Amino acid sequence: MTTIIDGKKLAQKINLQTTKEVAKLKGQGIKPGIAVILVGDDPASKMYTRNKQRKAEKLGMNSILKTFPSDVSQQVILDEIKALNSDDTINAILVQAPLPQQIDADVITSAIVPSKDVDGFHPQNLGRLYANQAGNYPVACTPKGIMTILKEYHVPLVGQHAVIVGRSILVGKPMAALLLNEDVTVTVAGHHTKNLASLTKQADILIVATGVGHLIKAEFVKPDAVVIDVGIDHDDNGKLIGDVDFDAVKDVVGAITPVPGGVGPLTIATLMQQTVELTKWSQING
Amino acid sequence: MTTIIDGKKLAQKINLQTTKEVAKLKGQGIKPGIAVILVGDDPASKMYTRNKQRKAEKLGMNSILKTFPSDVSQQVILDEIKALNSDDTINAILVQAPLPQQIDADVITSAIVPSKDVDGFHPQNLGRLYANQAGNYPVACTPKGIMTILKEYHVPLVGQHAVIVGRSILVGKPMAALLLNEDVTVTVAGHHTKNLASLTKQADILIVATGVGHLIKAEFVKPDAVVIDVGIDHDDNGKLIGDVDFDAVKDVVGAITPVPGGVGPLTIATLMQQTVELTKWSQING
Repeated sequence: MTTIIDGKKLAQKINLQTTKEVAKLKGQGIKPGIAVILVGDDPASKMYTRNKQRKAEKLGMNSILKTFPSDVSQQVILDEIKALNSDDTINAILVQAPLPQQIDADVITSAIVPSKDVDGFHPQNLGRLYANQAGNYPVACTPKGIMTILKEYHVPLVGQHAVIVGRSILVGKPMAALLLNEDVTVTVAGHHTKNLASLTKQADILIVATGVGHLIKAEFVKPDAVVIDVGIDHDDNGKLIGDVDFDAVKDVVGAITPVPGGVGPLTIATLMQQTVELTKWSQING
Repeated sequence: MTTIIDGKKLAQKINLQTTKEVAKLKGQGIKPGIAVILVGDDPASKMYTRNKQRKAEKLGMNSILKTFPSDVSQQVILDEIKALNSDDTINAILVQAPLPQQIDADVITSAIVPSKDVDGFHPQNLGRLYANQAGNYPVACTPKGIMTILKEYHVPLVGQHAVIVGRSILVGKPMAALLLNEDVTVTVAGHHTKNLASLTKQADILIVATGVGHLIKAEFVKPDAVVIDVGIDHDDNGKLIGDVDFDAVKDVVGAITPVPGGVGPLTIATLMQQTVELTKWSQING
């Protein structure tokens, strides 16, 4: 029997824990605060941003939104980040992707102070993760949420072979780092990979984040594999689908995340969880 | 016919270029400077340090050595790094590994200003590399030297499958990052990996950095693979050997680095090359 991983249920569990942590901080006179910077009026970005804000408020946190027109200069965004970096009521700062062409995402990413970098994209945080450094630092929320799934579902890690399809700093690269740090053998594939199926078929754990709907078919997976689908795509009828052909794959593998209801809810729950963690760490560090 | 990669010859070529760059800088009144911090009296560390110093001087650079007893406190080393960070005559700082137990290597690594971090171990530099950021930043010298080998020998990269055995921040992790950035499919294996031979046998490019002498035998490699051996081990008779059983593997593969005379000379030539690069970048940035 294939396990259908219930991302919604697991997200609720994390949110419950976050609510408790927020209440505990409230007793100390502290309210975690998250600031979201939104540039332009991409409808999807607006929706994601609104969801994050609502969730933060529902969990008892402060949430502020800073919106800018799509032709805003990079300097204006940098000035805003600078102000938020030194704002004691803000513990987490995120800049909603994508950014317009005149803004260099690398510059923006490096401008957020590492201790408020709730997306974990700052090179210093990514580097600490990749180096497997001890201590407290934020990690990209989607892969961090996937680790929560793997642990919650008792997926064996040490010595297993994970294949990650996709190499972004949102998912693929931090995911590879997290798994290497758990003594997993890791293969990272991309759109240049030849014979993708022969690689993915070796995976004990298959993580797919490509944005190519239904890329992974039944013949791409090993029986009993654990399949994590990060894709959010639409089929020809506008129906939400993942990077994995769920109906074809689900009877072959051991466990699989659905789309929607798999990784998605975990990402936002992890974002909230990490906002609280950043708040607590800022208390420790001064 | 198997290509035996000539690391010495390639190192000489790089050193010649470095000498020219040093002469050019001299014309501008600039002399690159490298500072090496050595803690304790491990004979191998002393030898490596001496080699680096001699090479730097031979190439016309300033080289200073700061030695400390093995019971030195971490604070003393941090104070020394702080002084070197603000010393305008020093462009490159490295702390020779290994460090004694009372010193936290992560703290030391993060204390060196990223612009003088010639080993490329600072999390910010490692993170920038892993994120494939544009711009100038140092990269760990052994994997950077291996990229020079792969390019000099016209080894195809895009879409090829590299298997890296070993996950250190000296070799395996930055190597994986460099190859991912060149659109290579990358597998990173470690001592926990099951069925190592079945993985390494898939490699178009096999890079081994484990410290386990003769780990890789003929049945571990694919015909025509390019094999890069980073190991420096000793057999029972005290003879220098690599992680690859050279005599057994060399007739199977397409190209292979010997030990000694393969990767080793490239590492030190790259260290010198990167010292000059850091010097030039410091002119650009201020």
